[in-house]
Order: sequence, then C-alpha cells, then structure tokens
Amino acid sequence: MANVPYKIYLTEEEMPKYWINMKAFMKEKPEPFLNPATFQPCTAEELEQVFCKELVKQEQNTTDKYIEIPKGIRDFYKMYRPSPLVRAYCLERQLDTPAEIYYKFEGTNTSGSHKLNSAAAQVYYAKEQGLTHLTTETGAGQWGTALSMACAYYNIDLTVFMVKVSSQQKPYRKAVIETYGGKVVASPSDTTEIGRKILSEHPDTGGSLGCAISEALETAVQTDNCRYVLGSVLDHVLLHQTIIGQETRIACEKHGIKPDIIIGCTGGGSNFGGLIAPFISEKIAGKSDVRIIGVEPASCPSLTRGKYAYDFGDTGKTSPLMKMYTLGSGFIPSPSHAGGLRFHGMSPIISKLYNDGYIEARAVEQTSVFDAATVFARSEGILPAPESAHALLAAMEEAIKCRETGEKKTIIFGLSGTGYFDMAAYVSYNSGTMVDYIPTDEDLEKGFAGLPKVPNRE
Amino acid sequence: MANVPYKIYLTEEEMPKYWINMKAFMKEKPEPFLNPATFQPCTAEELEQVFCKELVKQEQNTTDKYIEIPKGIRDFYKMYRPSPLVRAYCLERQLDTPAEIYYKFEGTNTSGSHKLNSAAAQVYYAKEQGLTHLTTETGAGQWGTALSMACAYYNIDLTVFMVKVSSQQKPYRKAVIETYGGKVVASPSDTTEIGRKILSEHPDTGGSLGCAISEALETAVQTDNCRYVLGSVLDHVLLHQTIIGQETRIACEKHGIKPDIIIGCTGGGSNFGGLIAPFISEKIAGKSDVRIIGVEPASCPSLTRGKYAYDFGDTGKTSPLMKMYTLGSGFIPSPSHAGGLRFHGMSPIISKLYNDGYIEARAVEQTSVFDAATVFARSEGILPAPESAHALLAAMEEAIKCRETGEKKTIIFGLSGTGYFDMAAYVSYNSGTMVDYIPTDEDLEKGFAGLPKVPNRE
Repeated sequence: MANVPYKIYLTEEEMPKYWINMKAFMKEKPEPFLNPATFQPCTAEELEQVFCKELVKQEQNTTDKYIEIPKGIRDFYKMYRPSPLVRAYCLERQLDTPAEIYYKFEGTNTSGSHKLNSAAAQVYYAKEQGLTHLTTETGAGQWGTALSMACAYYNIDLTVFMVKVSSQQKPYRKAVIETYGGKVVASPSDTTEIGRKILSEHPDTGGSLGCAISEALETAVQTDNCRYVLGSVLDHVLLHQTIIGQETRIACEKHGIKPDIIIGCTGGGSNFGGLIAPFISEKIAGKSDVRIIGVEPASCPSLTRGKYAYDFGDTGKTSPLMKMYTLGSGFIPSPSHAGGLRFHGMSPIISKLYNDGYIEARAVEQTSVFDAATVFARSEGILPAPESAHALLAAMEEAIKCRETGEKKTIIFGLSGTGYFDMAAYVSYNSGTMVDYIPTDEDLEKGFAGLPKVPNRE
Repeated sequence: MANVPYKIYLTEEEMPKYWINMKAFMKEKPEPFLNPATFQPCTAEELEQVFCKELVKQEQNTTDKYIEIPKGIRDFYKMYRPSPLVRAYCLERQLDTPAEIYYKFEGTNTSGSHKLNSAAAQVYYAKEQGLTHLTTETGAGQWGTALSMACAYYNIDLTVFMVKVSSQQKPYRKAVIETYGGKVVASPSDTTEIGRKILSEHPDTGGSLGCAISEALETAVQTDNCRYVLGSVLDHVLLHQTIIGQETRIACEKHGIKPDIIIGCTGGGSNFGGLIAPFISEKIAGKSDVRIIGVEPASCPSLTRGKYAYDFGDTGKTSPLMKMYTLGSGFIPSPSHAGGLRFHGMSPIISKLYNDGYIEARAVEQTSVFDAATVFARSEGILPAPESAHALLAAMEEAIKCRETGEKKTIIFGLSGTGYFDMAAYVSYNSGTMVDYIPTDEDLEKGFAGLPKVPNRE
C-alpha cells in the first residue's frame, strides 16, 4: 500500500462507460411510486407529464444492472472528470492514526460539487427529447449552479427556485447561476400558487427544499415544452451519480485499495448512493462485508429519527408518494448551514437499503462538523462544503477509533463539494455564534402527524 | 495530435524536481536592486533584514540554471499538484477555430490560484530559519489565502494587509484567510506609520498593492522573529512559480504538443514568468521562435505605457529600488475588478525580457475581459478569475485570427485562478454597470514625475 500516490486520476480510457443500477442488484426492490389520488402505482405516462421520458424509463428500470452512458454525456464528463481519489496523508498525520483515509473529491468543477454528474445527464436527455425549458429547485445552490452549467452547454432555458434562506446566505451562488444564463427565483415566491399559499401561512419562513420543489413542479407543468428536473432523491439521479462510485472502485482496483468503511453525507441521498453503488452491490451479493455509513445533520435526521413510510417529496403535497425514511413533508428544518441536507425525506433506494440493514446511519451536530472542516482545511488544504464535512467528521471519528485500537482500517469518504460559497457559515463558526439545532420529539410528532394514510401499503 | 486527452496530469514520478532560474539563461542580467539611501547595490545582509535568508540567496543567484526543490516543498506540492494542462476542445468548438488551445489551470486548490506555489516555498524556508511570524499584503486575496494555507500547514503566525478595495469587494476572502488562522488588516490601516500617513493624505483611497506592501514591510521590521514575504514581482517568487512552466513543458513533451504562442496575464509577473520560464530559456538560446505575450489591464498598463526605470516597489518608498517597467510608485490605479493586476510596476526579470524584445505585451479593457470570461465559463465550465481572463481574452483573440487565416496554431495560456471569490465583479458585469478605466497621459505623467533620480544608472 506504500506506493499509493496522493491523488489517483483515471485516464480517459479507464473512465467508466456504464452507470450502476442498484435496484437491479437488490434482493427486495424499493416500493413503487404511488399516485396520491388513487394510491395506485404511477404509470410512465403520468410521470412523463413532469419528467423527461428517458429519465422515467431509468426511474422504473429494476432489471438492467448496468446502463450505458451515452457518448454525448461521456464527452461532457471528460470536460471536468475524472475527479481525484485522494489519499489523505496529511490528515492521517494530523490525526496520528494507523488508518488509511481516502476521499473522492467532487469539488473541482465550478458548480463545486457532484451535482454536475446528474445535471449533465438530465439536460442531455431533455435536449434529445426536444425540450426548450427546464425548472428546478436548489438548496445550497450547488444543484442550481450545476444545472445552469449544463443548460449553458446544451443551450436550454432554466428557472431555478432557490430556498430563500440559502439565497440569503449565499448571494454569490445566484450570481454564478446568472453568469451561466439561469434565472433565479427565491422560494417561497409569489410566482406560484403554492408559493403564495406558503407565504400567507408562514410569511417569515426561510423556505425548504420541499417547498421549492413544489414551486418548480407547478411552473414546469404550466410552461410549454418544459419539464422539471430534480437534483437528488430519485432513482435516476442516484443512477447518474454512480459515476463517482465507479471511478472510485476502478481506482481502488488499480492500486490494490480494499475499503473497510465507506462514508458519505446524506441529504436526499444522491452523492451517498452514487459513491456506494458498486460496493453495496458486492455487499448484497455477499462478496464483501464493507461497512457503509450515511451521515446526516442532527437538525434534519430523516434516517436516524424518521419513519419508513409513504410520503410526498414536496411540502405542497403534489409529488407522487414515495416509500422512504421521512420526517413528514410538513417538517420544516431549522435553518442550518448545510442547505443541501435540509430535506425531510431520503432516497427510496437508500431508505430501503437502510431498512434492510445494509447501511448504517449517524446524525451529527453542525458545530462539530465545522470543527472537523477546519482541521481538514488546515491539513489537506481544501475548504469543504458544510454538507461534505458531515462525512468528513464521521471519517475522522472512525480514524480516531483506529488510533485507539491500533487497527489499520481503510476508510473512504465522499468529499462531495467545496465550501467556497458557504463562507457565511464559516464566518458564523469563526465568530463563535454558530448554534446547534436538534428537533424535539414533539417537533417530530408534528411532522409525522401529516403523513398521508395509504391503504393496504403499510 | 488527435489523441491528446482533455486533461493531462503528470504522475508523481514525472513531477519536476527543479525550479528554473531564468536569470541564469539570460544573456544580459536584470540590473541589481539598489539601496535607495546610497544608490549602491543591496547586499545580502541588507535584504536579510526584511526577507528570509534562503530567499535572498535565490534572489541574488544569477548563475545556477536549475535549483532543486527541497523534499519538504515537493511533499506540499503533492498535496494539490500537479495542476492539469487542459485541451480546450469545447472552447475551440465554440470559437470555430482551427487553432489548438490549451490552458494550464492553477485554480484547483483552495487559494484558487497559482499563488500557493510560492507560498509553500517561502513558508517552508521561514520555518527552516526558525521564524515564528510572517507579514504580507494581498490584493485580490489569492496570495493572502495561499499564504494562510501554507502558514497553517507549517504552523507559523501570519498578518495579512489586504488592499481595502479588495477587502470590500471580497469579504469572503477575509473569512477564508481567517479559517486558515491568518489575521487580516484592511490597508491602508491605522496600525502602521505609513498607513496613517496615506490615510491622512487620501482618506477615501481604496488602497493599492504598493501601499499594503509598505505596511507589511513596516510591521515585519518592527516585530520579533518576523519577516516579510511577497507574492509576486521578485525573482525568487518567479523562481518558485516555474513549477507551472516545468509541468507544462513536461506535459507538452509527453504528448508532442509544440506551442506557437504562450500567453499569461501580468500583474507583478509571477504567474506569467512561471509559465514561460522553460520556453523563454529555449527562445533565448535560439532554439525556439515561440511568441510569448503578457496581457495587462488597460487601467494599469505598466508594460505597454510605463517607463523602464529604477523605482520603489511600494507606495511608501521604503523598498529597495528595482529597475522595471513602472507607472511610478505614486500611481494609484483606478478601482478595477482585477485586484491582482493593480500594481504600478512589473517583475524586473519580465521587464528586462520585454525590454530586450523576447516578449510582447498587450493591454485590454475589463468589459472585454468579462465578455471572454463568460464565453469561457459557458463552454469550458470553469469560472475564471478576472486576472486570468486577461490571458484568456488574448488567447481567444489569437484563436479567432487563426479562424480568419486558417492557420492551425497551438496556443497555451495560463488560467492562473478561479473567480469564485470575484462574484461582486461578475454581478457588476451581469448588471451592465461595469465601466472601463483608462488613465490619461496626464495621469501617467503624474506617476512618472515621482520616479526617483538615480545617479549614473539610466
């Protein structure tokens, strides 16, 4: 293991040509989406009102283990990929641990995160379908930036509903999206019916991903030649993100790296799902006993304190019903600085894997997350996104356990993005004014009370 | 040439072990620094009052062509290098040019620019010398960030005097520096004598690099176990930056790339000097007729409209005298968004090479620079720093000439950094309120009037 370089880059020839369809590997499949009016499984025709055709096909595909990445998308990937798998030699020294720590760093593109992996794919398929306009929501701003980059590349109009608290915390995110030609609307806004309704009920709300999703959905349905695209949660988004795990696995094979623990942060689950895909497939097949840990904020603990139930993906209760770990679509998380993790639910695939015992979950508090981020920045030279630093913190905790036990474990974590547009959060942390938010059991009960009653399904 | 990948990364084994000392290749050497009190060449002892010993040695070395990079610095370089040499396939398509365009991208580290190359070296030597404290200035903030990263790594205290207009335009730069443990002071400040003097004469000034340098120098001299470090202009800074050119040359050899034109932006000259070093050495030896172009802002045109004369490096007139192209140390550039190029002078090495006809210079206006930056962002997916976009603009101009003449030239430009902390500039550009500043001949005459009279030297 001594000859592992600081950074492993695949060559263009080594880059993956296939995404991994995790569902095809799963012994039990996630439950299907339900139409909230009939409680019957959604048909492709229904989903195609909202989503691109090819994406609906991918969403409903539970049989093909590998799905070819079209050349047009692989060319886009070549522009900013491969991302490096980095051996964290400096962090290992700093922690004085016998563990080997690696991170897959998705922050080297201008969107600052992994989000571009699915944006590239989704806009490619929209273009192929002849669409001219897309809508979406963004929390931390990484997805909106990524999508605006892809839309600039493929020449498609874009409207981004940005969670209001994020747009206030990150004004320059808006400017980047606009530089790429995207239109930004702070959510909740008065441009949609659901936005106006939420504003009248909660005039001071900072918004949420769920609410921004509702506004983007409403706008997509009411605009010609337009569809809605989503940056996380859905199966097809996780599919595109498996480029992360595929590159990681190939790099590991190339250098004889055998991970004992794989860690990612979980908001909607796309970065985490993308990273773990090839490894969980082997684990399901009984070929590996790698530990896989999802890390979420204690302020929005869908896996560790949520219910596994059918729920809406959006606050406006207009989306299909999805079986997932959820805090209830009415749960509005306290403002925290990890905007990308402020979602009430969790990817149905990740939820099912968690429910079936293949993965672990851990909730952490944001001041500890920034402690870890600062240590990492000063030793590894990269300023992490608050979201990514959740995974970093858990990786550091595992490495410190190794120091105590003397075990030489191999830990890989996903560093899904950079914190260059999260400086308001670092200012808050540096000044000592950052606080931790943990919902009470009562807060959670209120969210659960709003869960839809689904007959014969639970 | 068809098989060049989008991105070329060197392996750790291929990475350069030597910096290039351009002066050792030059037929005529740059003039020595002069002590402004005696007009005699500065001695090593005099310079060591301000700078680290090893750096003074490097500054005065005109004979060794190659200087070994110590292992401690090469280890630091491995943390964030190599940087990619990128084939701009997407930009080529966008411009419909037969030219081949490459850029050496130095923006993948958290400082966002090439500055870390010299910061790593300078702090390493300071640590070796047993120093505990460093001072510096920063304009765009890239140097200050880079130095704070290096100081965190080597555990040395740092005070950064940040040009006031930059600290206002880029509040989050300050936050990054503070996250890395650096102390930031807006310049001119009331913490130094020269700062108080400038404030009393020009209470509304936005400051300048020259003024911030004076404050950092004054503080270094008056603090125990402390030295001043500079992020550009000086010969040893260019020396460290030759890691850029060395990597570029090795990548070119590996893939059979033969550049016809090499382009960099010029503020103090370090990024430009670092990029061109191996190529200019061959040109001086008559082995190459590559064109080399430095691009500067029309608002601060030291090469294209300055005088080749002895001048101070700082507004406070406390530095040694350097023979360089200068607008006069009293010239305060209009506020522009390329803070890193707002310096009245130019590297003595670059000045000498320009004076001797080895390099060309071009001045460009900032609205055109942002036009180019936006085209680049939308096609290549990277949001450039305003400074770097000066080089980009000239590269695009040359590529467009190729479209008109049908010539298939090979163009390499230095993309020295990203614009993630320059969003105020992009906001100004996007809103259409950005204006171009060009000094009048009268403005320049005022600056020239302040040039020192140096006996028997001009």
